[in-house]
Amino acid sequence: MATVRIFVTLKPSLLDSAGRTVAGSLQKLGYNEVDEVRIGKMIEMKVEDASEQRIKEMCDKLLANPVIEDYRYEVVA
Amino acid sequence: MATVRIFVTLKPSLLDSAGRTVAGSLQKLGYNEVDEVRIGKMIEMKVEDASEQRIKEMCDKLLANPVIEDYRYEVVA
Repeated sequence: MATVRIFVTLKPSLLDSAGRTVAGSLQKLGYNEVDEVRIGKMIEMKVEDASEQRIKEMCDKLLANPVIEDYRYEVVA
Repeated sequence: MATVRIFVTLKPSLLDSAGRTVAGSLQKLGYNEVDEVRIGKMIEMKVEDASEQRIKEMCDKLLANPVIEDYRYEVVA
């Protein structure tokens, strides 16, 4: 049994409005060192067999939206 | 300018209903090797000065809900 961690992020060219809101809130709370915030998803899966090809397929079909999102993954153990 | 990556996850004792739905969908698509799925957030921040203490404060005050979520972070560069 392997653990796969998939990180799904908005493409850099797209405005991340949730991230911008969080950045604004942090600055209002006094954390002026915060510049940009972007929010993505981390998906942790336990799989029986971590085939690269099938993980990529899962990302393209269901876990990420390739039109607006990038993803990367790591097989943990 | 440093980049801080914060990973916010539901505490392991809590049911992740979104994750369960994703696991079910993957299995319906034929990915029967998928066992458990848990979904968390990845928050990427650019900060001027990555003070550990202030990052922890931001997580506890705004970025995570310490009642139901755990977090960890890494300073990237």
